[in-house]
Amino acid sequence: MTRPRLGVCYYPEHWPEADWAAHASAIRALGIEYVRIGEFCWSRIEPRHERFDWRWLDSALESLSAAGLEIILCTPTACPPQWLVARHPDILPRDVAGNVRGFGSRRHYAFSSEVYGQHCDRIVTAMLERYADCAQVVGWQIDNEFGCHDTTVGFGSETEQRFQTWLQNRYRSIEALNDAWGTEFWSQAYSAFDTVELPGAAVTESNPAHTLALRRFASEEVRRFGERQASLIRQKTPTGVWLTHNFMGNFTDFDHYDAARDLDLASWDSYPLGFLDQGWFDEETKSRYRRTGHPDWAAFHHDLYRGVCRGRFAVMEQQPGPVNWADNNAAPLPGMVRLWSWEAIAHGAEFVSFFRWQQYPKAQEQMHSALNLPTGEAADVQTEIRQLAGELATIAPGEPATAEVALAFDYPSCWMAEIQPHAAEYSAFRQAFDYYSAARRLGLDMDIVSPDSDFSKYRLILVPAVLSVDRKLVSALEASGAQVLIGPRCGSKTAEFSIPPELPPGALQSLIPLRVVAVDSIRADNRVPIAYGNNEYYARCWLEHIDTDLEAKAATADGTGVYFAAGACHYVGAVTSPDFLRQIILELCRRAGIDMSPVAGGLRLRRRGNLVFAFNYGPDSAALPAGAGKLLLGSAPLARGEIAVWRDPRAH
Amino acid sequence: MTRPRLGVCYYPEHWPEADWAAHASAIRALGIEYVRIGEFCWSRIEPRHERFDWRWLDSALESLSAAGLEIILCTPTACPPQWLVARHPDILPRDVAGNVRGFGSRRHYAFSSEVYGQHCDRIVTAMLERYADCAQVVGWQIDNEFGCHDTTVGFGSETEQRFQTWLQNRYRSIEALNDAWGTEFWSQAYSAFDTVELPGAAVTESNPAHTLALRRFASEEVRRFGERQASLIRQKTPTGVWLTHNFMGNFTDFDHYDAARDLDLASWDSYPLGFLDQGWFDEETKSRYRRTGHPDWAAFHHDLYRGVCRGRFAVMEQQPGPVNWADNNAAPLPGMVRLWSWEAIAHGAEFVSFFRWQQYPKAQEQMHSALNLPTGEAADVQTEIRQLAGELATIAPGEPATAEVALAFDYPSCWMAEIQPHAAEYSAFRQAFDYYSAARRLGLDMDIVSPDSDFSKYRLILVPAVLSVDRKLVSALEASGAQVLIGPRCGSKTAEFSIPPELPPGALQSLIPLRVVAVDSIRADNRVPIAYGNNEYYARCWLEHIDTDLEAKAATADGTGVYFAAGACHYVGAVTSPDFLRQIILELCRRAGIDMSPVAGGLRLRRRGNLVFAFNYGPDSAALPAGAGKLLLGSAPLARGEIAVWRDPRAH
Amino acid sequence: MTRPRLGVCYYPEHWPEADWAAHASAIRALGIEYVRIGEFCWSRIEPRHERFDWRWLDSALESLSAAGLEIILCTPTACPPQWLVARHPDILPRDVAGNVRGFGSRRHYAFSSEVYGQHCDRIVTAMLERYADCAQVVGWQIDNEFGCHDTTVGFGSETEQRFQTWLQNRYRSIEALNDAWGTEFWSQAYSAFDTVELPGAAVTESNPAHTLALRRFASEEVRRFGERQASLIRQKTPTGVWLTHNFMGNFTDFDHYDAARDLDLASWDSYPLGFLDQGWFDEETKSRYRRTGHPDWAAFHHDLYRGVCRGRFAVMEQQPGPVNWADNNAAPLPGMVRLWSWEAIAHGAEFVSFFRWQQYPKAQEQMHSALNLPTGEAADVQTEIRQLAGELATIAPGEPATAEVALAFDYPSCWMAEIQPHAAEYSAFRQAFDYYSAARRLGLDMDIVSPDSDFSKYRLILVPAVLSVDRKLVSALEASGAQVLIGPRCGSKTAEFSIPPELPPGALQSLIPLRVVAVDSIRADNRVPIAYGNNEYYARCWLEHIDTDLEAKAATADGTGVYFAAGACHYVGAVTSPDFLRQIILELCRRAGIDMSPVAGGLRLRRRGNLVFAFNYGPDSAALPAGAGKLLLGSAPLARGEIAVWRDPRAH
Repeated sequence: MTRPRLGVCYYPEHWPEADWAAHASAIRALGIEYVRIGEFCWSRIEPRHERFDWRWLDSALESLSAAGLEIILCTPTACPPQWLVARHPDILPRDVAGNVRGFGSRRHYAFSSEVYGQHCDRIVTAMLERYADCAQVVGWQIDNEFGCHDTTVGFGSETEQRFQTWLQNRYRSIEALNDAWGTEFWSQAYSAFDTVELPGAAVTESNPAHTLALRRFASEEVRRFGERQASLIRQKTPTGVWLTHNFMGNFTDFDHYDAARDLDLASWDSYPLGFLDQGWFDEETKSRYRRTGHPDWAAFHHDLYRGVCRGRFAVMEQQPGPVNWADNNAAPLPGMVRLWSWEAIAHGAEFVSFFRWQQYPKAQEQMHSALNLPTGEAADVQTEIRQLAGELATIAPGEPATAEVALAFDYPSCWMAEIQPHAAEYSAFRQAFDYYSAARRLGLDMDIVSPDSDFSKYRLILVPAVLSVDRKLVSALEASGAQVLIGPRCGSKTAEFSIPPELPPGALQSLIPLRVVAVDSIRADNRVPIAYGNNEYYARCWLEHIDTDLEAKAATADGTGVYFAAGACHYVGAVTSPDFLRQIILELCRRAGIDMSPVAGGLRLRRRGNLVFAFNYGPDSAALPAGAGKLLLGSAPLARGEIAVWRDPRAH
Repeated sequence: MTRPRLGVCYYPEHWPEADWAAHASAIRALGIEYVRIGEFCWSRIEPRHERFDWRWLDSALESLSAAGLEIILCTPTACPPQWLVARHPDILPRDVAGNVRGFGSRRHYAFSSEVYGQHCDRIVTAMLERYADCAQVVGWQIDNEFGCHDTTVGFGSETEQRFQTWLQNRYRSIEALNDAWGTEFWSQAYSAFDTVELPGAAVTESNPAHTLALRRFASEEVRRFGERQASLIRQKTPTGVWLTHNFMGNFTDFDHYDAARDLDLASWDSYPLGFLDQGWFDEETKSRYRRTGHPDWAAFHHDLYRGVCRGRFAVMEQQPGPVNWADNNAAPLPGMVRLWSWEAIAHGAEFVSFFRWQQYPKAQEQMHSALNLPTGEAADVQTEIRQLAGELATIAPGEPATAEVALAFDYPSCWMAEIQPHAAEYSAFRQAFDYYSAARRLGLDMDIVSPDSDFSKYRLILVPAVLSVDRKLVSALEASGAQVLIGPRCGSKTAEFSIPPELPPGALQSLIPLRVVAVDSIRADNRVPIAYGNNEYYARCWLEHIDTDLEAKAATADGTGVYFAAGACHYVGAVTSPDFLRQIILELCRRAGIDMSPVAGGLRLRRRGNLVFAFNYGPDSAALPAGAGKLLLGSAPLARGEIAVWRDPRAH
Repeated sequence: MTRPRLGVCYYPEHWPEADWAAHASAIRALGIEYVRIGEFCWSRIEPRHERFDWRWLDSALESLSAAGLEIILCTPTACPPQWLVARHPDILPRDVAGNVRGFGSRRHYAFSSEVYGQHCDRIVTAMLERYADCAQVVGWQIDNEFGCHDTTVGFGSETEQRFQTWLQNRYRSIEALNDAWGTEFWSQAYSAFDTVELPGAAVTESNPAHTLALRRFASEEVRRFGERQASLIRQKTPTGVWLTHNFMGNFTDFDHYDAARDLDLASWDSYPLGFLDQGWFDEETKSRYRRTGHPDWAAFHHDLYRGVCRGRFAVMEQQPGPVNWADNNAAPLPGMVRLWSWEAIAHGAEFVSFFRWQQYPKAQEQMHSALNLPTGEAADVQTEIRQLAGELATIAPGEPATAEVALAFDYPSCWMAEIQPHAAEYSAFRQAFDYYSAARRLGLDMDIVSPDSDFSKYRLILVPAVLSVDRKLVSALEASGAQVLIGPRCGSKTAEFSIPPELPPGALQSLIPLRVVAVDSIRADNRVPIAYGNNEYYARCWLEHIDTDLEAKAATADGTGVYFAAGACHYVGAVTSPDFLRQIILELCRRAGIDMSPVAGGLRLRRRGNLVFAFNYGPDSAALPAGAGKLLLGSAPLARGEIAVWRDPRAH
């Protein structure tokens, strides 16, 4: 693995050409090596149909190259220009009520529009003809933030036709579709594929299998849209030039494992404060971490996107200060941009690219801060970047640590839970995050991976919320020899959104002999106490009634078993308190012989190569773990917003 | 009255034909005698236009008959099949914005569609031709859950035309309409009936008389739709076969007294936990009764539906475990299904039919539990059903107790309060429920009846929220000689939604000489103390300013009179605390010489024949009332979720 | 200035002609001199196209005149009649989704409809021809409540065309528009004006400059609509007849300074209880003032509307009892209608007109109380009116006090903050109100004025939330010699919604050398402590990071400066606690040599002429300030809901 780099997102089209050379020098002087460019510039490179203007982009690339910067070049397809929309209004997406979602912001296209696909081919080909051989271009980014603003699923007539074709390919016969969806129910039987409308406008809830089919189809349309560009770029670019897409946080509307299939690395948007404000966290947590972000948020996504793209990831947009898009946009505590960057690197990020070089004083994102003020003066955060660049020059983190713990994360499970939450507060994503967070409080390094993965190298596997479980996953879990922790609702659905014939947890029953016969779903304000050992924890939201001969290791006061084990397989039949999860994982680590470094408050650890990194997100100073040796960076106790690095005594 | 039976809802179309005979035997073996069938099977009996397939239904009915089961056969008109919708898209309902509410769930038809009416005639006639003389069919159900998913009021053009004709019939001249609605206000005058659009799309609130007219019209359309089927069924079926419709809980969108005019008995959906979660109760109440339901919820509806259909009612769908449709779907406490069933029977239910025989693992309601798991194995609840069936065999409850207390409940009052709530929290339905609940805490048996009823047999009449009071009601109240308790807002509107010329309470002023000259409507978080005797209660939500020479029996601190009496008529000019209502009703019972059995916590009583039934919904064990004799069922103290039965010492 | 009068809103069209003379006598007998009439009567004066019926209006005016009443005659254009809508459906407004907002309530027209404009010309001309010379008509009101029910901004095609023309006039070239809006961002460049759609239907947030342009355009359309009528009326009416429009409370959708340019006086709707219920106040405040209204609410609007129309204002609709339009409609405490009326007069109101004479028992506002019950009997409130009329006959308040304190209030700033709140709780209107309220707790009299005003006569100028500051305002502030207090976010935008080149506070930097380099926006439940002197206050919602060489006079615990001063200019870089504002204003008054009379609780003061008025809105009796001399009205201590008047010892 190459050494981690710093990058920046740069929009020469916002600034006078005369300033570009100075910008490039200043970027390089700050220790930044990569510049991402071009993802919103279609109207500038093709101001009218087939009238291209490359001069300015040539010039911008030259200025950057002259300063020794390397380029991540983006295709501009996230924003079709106004003339293209006027020419082909049918490329615009439609909402569930059939209303057009129009021009004037971004992502105003339907993934299913063939005409738009052809225009994308055209503009991408044109860019490739001009820049494919440009030596400074080290990577290409396809489009930007697929699915942002609820654009994954659309409702136009071309989308409906493609959906019907997709159904035909999936089910082959209408009888098979009727059977898979159970259309005997409520007289829903279809006579032909072309009678199956897009779901959403029905009098009440549509058939969940129908909606799941739409979600699967929409996810595949995103993948297909990306692959079309990927294929063009692959054909034209030299070996070694990598391909990425910039994904988002807290976003599951399409299957990212699929979408990343043709990419070399996944990159993502790390905005810890914006997501804290918009997230599900309680008010107390939002207050505590208002200016630092939740200690596990970015970490979770780093591990997720490393898993999404088979080990390679980067941060394409790192929050540099207050953002503009949350309901409330806190200012990061001084030091946090450096901390967040090191956190990304500790998790294996190949680069961290700050969004953006200079705050643009106009248009939608004018209140999004940057490394420079709108005036061009350096923002205070540059001090942190400079320090970070200096530290990166002296500390070589090596390869990402090999995790002994895996967490299986699944996108269709998120869709299923959204389609039928059954308990208002249930979220598959949040379940995954809660398991991750509990494990991280034990100082564990984790991989987040697809349920399709090879699990053989792990000693503990967490499966918080894989709703549809196939034989392959069961075999892989079994073959791994690892301790396995299964969360509630796992295996509760077939791939066609029905209850499996053997009841939940479906195929997982071959690992642990129990069956879920009912679910008690619990109001937000209610907690059901759980006794475990000498401690009391609680269930909330979701409590399964389990039929089994196994003895419950933990149960509610009325004897409802909540935690069961059979050999290496452990099953928790409830959404529970974080402390209960932490305790279970702690015990499983002991069984698996996994070293832990429990941390308290806002302290978190992550290993990379032979180094241990510590991060303090909490409001108070934190003692470092007992095993921390001589510090290469930082000092103990670790102040709020600070990081420390030492050599891992366990590393060889 | 015949002895109470148990029933079950059964969907042979969900299961292989080979299993039907075994299902039938198992149903019968459990002590169930009635099977409801067919309400969603149109696409199965008529898979294509005029291509009928009766074979499967013949076979299913044969299997059931062979096991000794009796059939409640449903018309399948709640779900027009896809081919019919494709043939006549105009049958689809439209929402207030004019958007089509499409195929893919249920109830996708406009009540005003004549084409749909004709297709309903056709399918009902076809069913009658085949099954009218089937000896095992003891009753017919028309359609299912009229109005569910906000389908009572629709907004298509055929609806608008029929509304205009309805207006013409009601008002005769446009001048009469203008006068009735007060269209001088805001220059709203109409020149002809065909210029009167459906209300709803106006810039701000439509004329409330206009909206009330739509609500009345829509209610009549529901009645007309039902009558059309009732008339066909009456003509073809033998004497003794009864006719029902399955109504819902907490549902007032049409006038159920009208809709039940052509029925023999009213049946309804009793889902105590789903309704608790979705209802207006405060969080503390929702927590306390999370797994039992509110102690007065089902009871209120039993009494209401008995009143809706002139004494005859049943539970067509009894919650058997967790449901799927609430935001949170709690699991009933073990024993509650038996308790709920006995509660229904104690109120006079002719049968209690469980929904449904077997959990269907596909489609929208796959998470709705049943008497059997999706696998076909018996769910735990069967233990309760078996116990219940055994108890029913030994305890003959006789005729429903003759209530001495009546509660007048009125549907148009609910519409009026929805159209102009005036206080955000005011609900006519909730007012009726609160009076009912206060009386029930005194151990009273009640009838819930239309304001049009004969009140001569009662000794106490509660009128919590009849907003438009006519002379007939006043005369009936007066003639009854009963104590009468009138709630706030009664008599506050004419039938045309105006303030009555004599001011509220309108015609009621001949019973009690007072006039409401203003209303103080109160924010949810505010309570205004009321002094009454030595106790302090409170008003919330609604506090009338009353002009009268009567002395107030209770008043607020600033002297606003809240409670007045004149002879047997008592008027409460505020929405008040439940304890205040309880105290007033207690005193009125004493005046009327009505025996009470006050109960505390979650304990409730109900008499039927010569038996007293006690039910404990509360979290704690409850002592039985002093008068409880030797128990035929249960034991004292009464455990949570348990019932007790003893002979009524007052019964002859 | 003439002596203050009382008025009433009267709708003869609601009552039999036979009653009009008696109504007129009763109105006059109560001490009322003005009657507003006609604003919703179009369908009555022109029941069919060009078929006028003046007879009834002639008769009504005669009855009123005969009783010695003077008339405020309204144009009826707020409610086009049904026949006009049927003839020209295109006059109806459309919502952002393009749906028609239909007939059946009021304000169902688009300001941009030329056809409607012509019909308005026609009806106004017809009224003028008949009544322009009527001696009893002392004033004309144009239309009513412009913009009510979100009708300022509309989305039809005629509106879009006019918007495009407006853009062309404003920007001249499409390049200038592209540059002003920063359409380089997200490839938004436009090629021609007719390609610029109305914003609102974009996939996500539209360009804020685009939306601001729509808001400016819509505001000008309102002004243009009003001017068209004003011009007709001016041409036909005699000198001395004044022209007004009836504005609303808490309403900023168009620029009222512009809209009032052609008026002689501004009038408004004073409904203190309705607005309290619907406003942003916390629950504790809403409870405390439930029956009195917030002590600064009406006062703020009186001062605002006096400023809107260059010194002349009146209350056209004074709440007389409970209203009908809030979620909860409290009954005023007895005495409040008198108190509110005196408050208006103390602020300089030329008249106070009660809404309305008699409660109309039908249609939308039947629950809006009036001076008479629907029966025609006097409501209790008439006692207060009679007392008020008597007091007005003895107390001549003279000219409104010359305020030494000005508060600059700006409408486009409200739009900007709505377009990009950046902090969920930020409201420019609320900021202005909070500054006003803090100053009023010091007993100060204030003028609320446009930022365009001449500030030379003031000694303290509050600028709570003028987001776009031009040189003219800076010069005026500087030239005034006054103490100036600037709130956060002032000067943060150019007129084209971009961050100013010199950074916020933009042009204000010439008064105080500081720059806002970042904003920390704060969740609703978070407060950041501020130390100032020996006291602790707090910031909430908005906290700026300021770059300056000035020493902070107040700062947060981590040293973020919150309060700075340079000479007479003071800058508060946060939304803060009311007590902090009060303390700063107190100190600035001392510096400016302004007398204060600090008041506590719900007591408030206002001077007019040589009189001081005291009002007690609080729940408890209040001591009068030390300087209060012999009372002309009222008694000390001042009871809840009472007023006192004494001679101002400072007045000459």
